[in-house]
Amino acid sequence: MKPANNFVSPMLTDFYQLTMAYAYWKDGKHEEPAVFDVFFRQNPFGKSFTIFAGLEEVLRFVSAYRFADEDIEYIKSLMPGCDAEFFDWLKRADCSKIKIYAVREGSVVFPRIPLIRVEGPLAIAQLLETTILNLVNYAGLVATNAACFRLAVGDESKVLLEFGARRAQGPDGAVSASRYSVIGGFNGTSNVLAGKLFGLTVKGTHAHSYVSSFSGLDDLKTNSIIDPDGKKHDFVSLALKFRKQLGFNHTNEGELAAFIAYAQAFPEGFLALVDTYDTLNSGVPNFLSVVMALHAIGYKPIGIRLDSGDLAYLSKKAKKMFQQVRERFPVDGFPNLLIVASNDINEATLISLKQQGHEIDVFGIGTHLVTCQTQPALGCVYKLVEVNGKQRIKLSQDVDKVTLPGRKEAYRLIGSEGTALLDLMIPVGEAPPRPGERILCRHPFEETKRVYVIPTEVISLHQCVWDGRINVPLPSVKELRRYTLDQLGLMRNDHLRTLNPTPYKVSVSNRLYDFIHELWMQEAPITEIQ
Amino acid sequence: MKPANNFVSPMLTDFYQLTMAYAYWKDGKHEEPAVFDVFFRQNPFGKSFTIFAGLEEVLRFVSAYRFADEDIEYIKSLMPGCDAEFFDWLKRADCSKIKIYAVREGSVVFPRIPLIRVEGPLAIAQLLETTILNLVNYAGLVATNAACFRLAVGDESKVLLEFGARRAQGPDGAVSASRYSVIGGFNGTSNVLAGKLFGLTVKGTHAHSYVSSFSGLDDLKTNSIIDPDGKKHDFVSLALKFRKQLGFNHTNEGELAAFIAYAQAFPEGFLALVDTYDTLNSGVPNFLSVVMALHAIGYKPIGIRLDSGDLAYLSKKAKKMFQQVRERFPVDGFPNLLIVASNDINEATLISLKQQGHEIDVFGIGTHLVTCQTQPALGCVYKLVEVNGKQRIKLSQDVDKVTLPGRKEAYRLIGSEGTALLDLMIPVGEAPPRPGERILCRHPFEETKRVYVIPTEVISLHQCVWDGRINVPLPSVKELRRYTLDQLGLMRNDHLRTLNPTPYKVSVSNRLYDFIHELWMQEAPITEIQ
Repeated sequence: MKPANNFVSPMLTDFYQLTMAYAYWKDGKHEEPAVFDVFFRQNPFGKSFTIFAGLEEVLRFVSAYRFADEDIEYIKSLMPGCDAEFFDWLKRADCSKIKIYAVREGSVVFPRIPLIRVEGPLAIAQLLETTILNLVNYAGLVATNAACFRLAVGDESKVLLEFGARRAQGPDGAVSASRYSVIGGFNGTSNVLAGKLFGLTVKGTHAHSYVSSFSGLDDLKTNSIIDPDGKKHDFVSLALKFRKQLGFNHTNEGELAAFIAYAQAFPEGFLALVDTYDTLNSGVPNFLSVVMALHAIGYKPIGIRLDSGDLAYLSKKAKKMFQQVRERFPVDGFPNLLIVASNDINEATLISLKQQGHEIDVFGIGTHLVTCQTQPALGCVYKLVEVNGKQRIKLSQDVDKVTLPGRKEAYRLIGSEGTALLDLMIPVGEAPPRPGERILCRHPFEETKRVYVIPTEVISLHQCVWDGRINVPLPSVKELRRYTLDQLGLMRNDHLRTLNPTPYKVSVSNRLYDFIHELWMQEAPITEIQ
Repeated sequence: MKPANNFVSPMLTDFYQLTMAYAYWKDGKHEEPAVFDVFFRQNPFGKSFTIFAGLEEVLRFVSAYRFADEDIEYIKSLMPGCDAEFFDWLKRADCSKIKIYAVREGSVVFPRIPLIRVEGPLAIAQLLETTILNLVNYAGLVATNAACFRLAVGDESKVLLEFGARRAQGPDGAVSASRYSVIGGFNGTSNVLAGKLFGLTVKGTHAHSYVSSFSGLDDLKTNSIIDPDGKKHDFVSLALKFRKQLGFNHTNEGELAAFIAYAQAFPEGFLALVDTYDTLNSGVPNFLSVVMALHAIGYKPIGIRLDSGDLAYLSKKAKKMFQQVRERFPVDGFPNLLIVASNDINEATLISLKQQGHEIDVFGIGTHLVTCQTQPALGCVYKLVEVNGKQRIKLSQDVDKVTLPGRKEAYRLIGSEGTALLDLMIPVGEAPPRPGERILCRHPFEETKRVYVIPTEVISLHQCVWDGRINVPLPSVKELRRYTLDQLGLMRNDHLRTLNPTPYKVSVSNRLYDFIHELWMQEAPITEIQ
């Protein structure tokens, strides 16, 4: 079980993890049992939810955790003067004594809930920090972004494709974006490598450069097409005949040549980019000429792609032109032509298009999706909550940054309407909440915010995913996508709303509340002001 | 010569590159000589310059360009019905017939200047698009961001470290960020893998979790330290003695224990994170107690790291405390203690810190640097400018999106003050500008914007970097960093200014101007309005 990317290794870490490991080792503290929580403090993009993703890569990373000999040599060179025995220890370091609990990949998650809990020898658990955070931060960010785009489109029948490879933050940014966009609700990608690695649906047609590589019909080297029955046709004459019949006499002939060549190559998958010269005066007319020609010999063309201009207006106009042709030349089985739109689409564009009305069937989304322009980083952190049996709290002037000490379980409480009411954390060992039983749920820091809940259903959020080996099945990306969409279905709409969504409650049991505050008072210094 | 990341391969592409290659092949057009330009239309972050980076990875990619057998099988499965001979062709496809011209990696570049010109068989040159864009877009973005941070800090003696691995967009986002931040003027990174791969300076100390893993002095398992002469000391007693002497009696003992353990592990590299509990009342006092102890036995401690709070205020206060200790306990060779600051630092923070005055020597910068929060994507594009000897222009309603046709050379004209005046593009074959000779430089689109220039020096920007093999030496990251800083030194300050920088002129020769407009008129349809 190796990670997909060769950069994912124990070396993908901050140097201070190694210096800390050495300091622990030097003090003889490195084997002390420790517990770290991975969580975030704020949902991204001003939303009220986040999708958790990246777990499979974390498990593959942990599974293959071993420093290579050359890595050890390199690290030695960074740490002159350190005891040689430490490097022997580091060379043997692996995750066989580590236990990992986590929420399921694709879950809808909220601030403060431990997404991953890492338990094991202090130095090893510490060494995992940077890589785990790297693997879950971007994954969750893109999956959440994709889910927001999916929610903004509204209509489940609309197809969303990830087109961002060229603008992504590096090769892995591209491949991860494809994978986690699909987990968040996209239907496919243009990225061939991601398609191969993760079994995703891969889509694509042609670019403007393809169209502009043809100056005119003379540039065509072939003009024949074989119909489904094996009969050969002069396809240029056929397309020109229909162009004349449709009355489109002033279209760009280079573009027409490009469409003809493309149809000859993909008679069963003809989808043309129509905005190279002039969408309504050249692109769509040329497209329809080729469509009629293909249809006449028994093929079913697919549709057009719009990559510039006013997408709502152009899609409606193009749709109308399709209908006019259909009405003027009523032929049997004339296909339902699709309209694909791309061009710097973001969440606001999707919402605006929906308001204006549009005829777009498929959205190709790149830069804004993969770089998460609105907020390009998710702030997952990795905090020590227990060491050697002692619960630890990290204090801060900023209450939001205070950590919740100790090992915690998390539950989602479902109400009588079948939607999630709140998430509840309890200390490991406390009796879990039960359906039908009233439980007091408290805000972790604001003492007056309390609520009694009688859940109709209780979902346990954590499971042990690693126990020296991978402990859970690894679902396919398509299964994760289904799971994500189902989990979103459990949420009230107001939590998922695009603008000013209602915050979802994350609470602690009374016992955990008391414990947090006791420890806090104990650790917080009372400073003197003079 | 393989790319650093195993994801960088012919498969890291948009599917439409393959369908276009097939359509070209099917029409017999795939071997036609073609020329593509890589350029961007707008500098990122509202700046007036961009740093070009990513070239070495492009060359490694091109050099290793070959589809594996399993890739071919996968692609076949995506393209049912396509001729088998195409896949034989694809299997043999490589870059032996490709020529690549490029500006030097680390150059200061501007909109519209071809950064890379790819010449060769149409289908192959087309297939390179997505990967090349992926490799240069993020690289240039981060290098430019790093250069902006470097300029914002102002003082060249300040050290800038990249700390973003955990928040980067995937593993490659992290590793690339380290590499290209250094090219843009950073001094080092916390990323161990990037350090190893690219020979970067690697730095790091410890985290809050390290400090909070110690509850008190009882948690220390060892308390001895060996001085440079080999003599053993009870280091806890020593530190406690100095703490008392300094009058710091109420500091957090867990923190003190952590510092003692860290000093015992790194007596020659003691740098302590001082803000876990209370920077001025606990962290700095504990640090100074350990500093005095280390100094007493002959070691030179390094300094502190601040990771929260008001960095300007705290750095000044801490510096003052250092000085007070030095004055109260005048000892020979008391070290000059460094102050490292990290905590969500962006360009605006750096500028504000400079205005307030601060005592920070080293900045550790993460999220904002590596994710390029202000603008997380650079918009490099890959445009066909010539095919089969015919120059091509891509028209658009938006003048900014019109491409400059044909093969072009680019020159930087230096003025009498030794700074760059403007960049000039000419068609390949036209006599290049010469020092001392007057030349008319025109805005590519606005006919009234013209200027005569008599350069004192002319720098040719393009060189042939690939000609079936890598044609240029590949400089180290440190050499590239030096080159970038030198190139920035050629620019007038007003072009580099943080706020509202003066745009730098990018012009074309008279001949190129005429040619662009002739082709434009020829291709632009005159539409009829009814």
